[in-house]
Amino acid sequence: MKILLVGASGTLGGAIAQTLSQHELLLASRSSAQYPVDITDDASVEALLRKTGKLDAIVSAAGVLHFGPLSEMTAAQFSVGLNDKLLGQVRLALLGQHYLNDGGSITLTTGIVSAEPIRGGANASAVNRALEGFVAGAACELPRGLRINAVSPNVLTESMQAYGAFFPGFEPVPAARAALAYQRSVEGVQTGRTFTVW
Amino acid sequence: MKILLVGASGTLGGAIAQTLSQHELLLASRSSAQYPVDITDDASVEALLRKTGKLDAIVSAAGVLHFGPLSEMTAAQFSVGLNDKLLGQVRLALLGQHYLNDGGSITLTTGIVSAEPIRGGANASAVNRALEGFVAGAACELPRGLRINAVSPNVLTESMQAYGAFFPGFEPVPAARAALAYQRSVEGVQTGRTFTVW
Repeated sequence: MKILLVGASGTLGGAIAQTLSQHELLLASRSSAQYPVDITDDASVEALLRKTGKLDAIVSAAGVLHFGPLSEMTAAQFSVGLNDKLLGQVRLALLGQHYLNDGGSITLTTGIVSAEPIRGGANASAVNRALEGFVAGAACELPRGLRINAVSPNVLTESMQAYGAFFPGFEPVPAARAALAYQRSVEGVQTGRTFTVW
Repeated sequence: MKILLVGASGTLGGAIAQTLSQHELLLASRSSAQYPVDITDDASVEALLRKTGKLDAIVSAAGVLHFGPLSEMTAAQFSVGLNDKLLGQVRLALLGQHYLNDGGSITLTTGIVSAEPIRGGANASAVNRALEGFVAGAACELPRGLRINAVSPNVLTESMQAYGAFFPGFEPVPAARAALAYQRSVEGVQTGRTFTVW
């Protein structure tokens, strides 16, 4: 398969690239020389897709959230996650659907905070759950055997030093284990699902 | 209780006002003479809250979504629901938390499409589910016995003529029945919940 992976430079993206390495991978990220993309910008995503041409799968492991205390949270801060991790990935799906070959798939990234809130994570709970709702809704409308799923990983083992304090008692998963769920989405048959890795 | 009801001029808002009529109700809406508000605007919501002063409950039955085929959907259209029904209600909660008396509550409105997708409803599925995630996350952080819930009604009997075609086989509920869930949220003890009315 010819697969576009957005967010390829991250910890999770790197593990997904490793897991899907038997495929033809186009590795996109904000800082990529060959496939640069800013998912918050229609023109940037369109330019990327024109460059890749037709695809068999689009995988996203990209997106920024706002973390911070609810008591100080502003609408502007909340919209960081809406515009980046949520609308950015939705934009990739909305524009990308037209570049997929019959039977192709889209896989987006949510996260455990959709189901298990953490301190300072109200934006993450909202954004991640929205992505799962989008995937459930969009799957019902995609034509030509196209599929769309989300993967919801627990906190990554590799991220525990940076984020572990926000996830007390959560059982971290290695990025390589989370990456398997992306393979399940890309090479499997299901649609409209959120694959949890926890 | 002193209760601010936003979206009071709608079908659902009217039924909620009726059900909560034993309380002191401040009825806000875009077109209200006494309590006008635009939930997409920080300054407008702040002005409303300064006018109401301290409250025992904030209830929202407001918010616009985008409905349309996924195959033609743009990020700009998708952001209609993000900026209005989602961020608008979140804004009301973020700003409103500081105006609530101890033990007060916030009740937001989602809808059945979060759980049961409909044709053209990918934006609604995402936005409604996001609100449920926000409520689940925010409930964990609210101090002083403050509570926050969502109500997810089925399509309203009163809206069937306008929207019925989008909800084939859905069992409509009278607005008065949906309104009971708001009373359950305002006068009850639970928090972080989505009360489904279907």
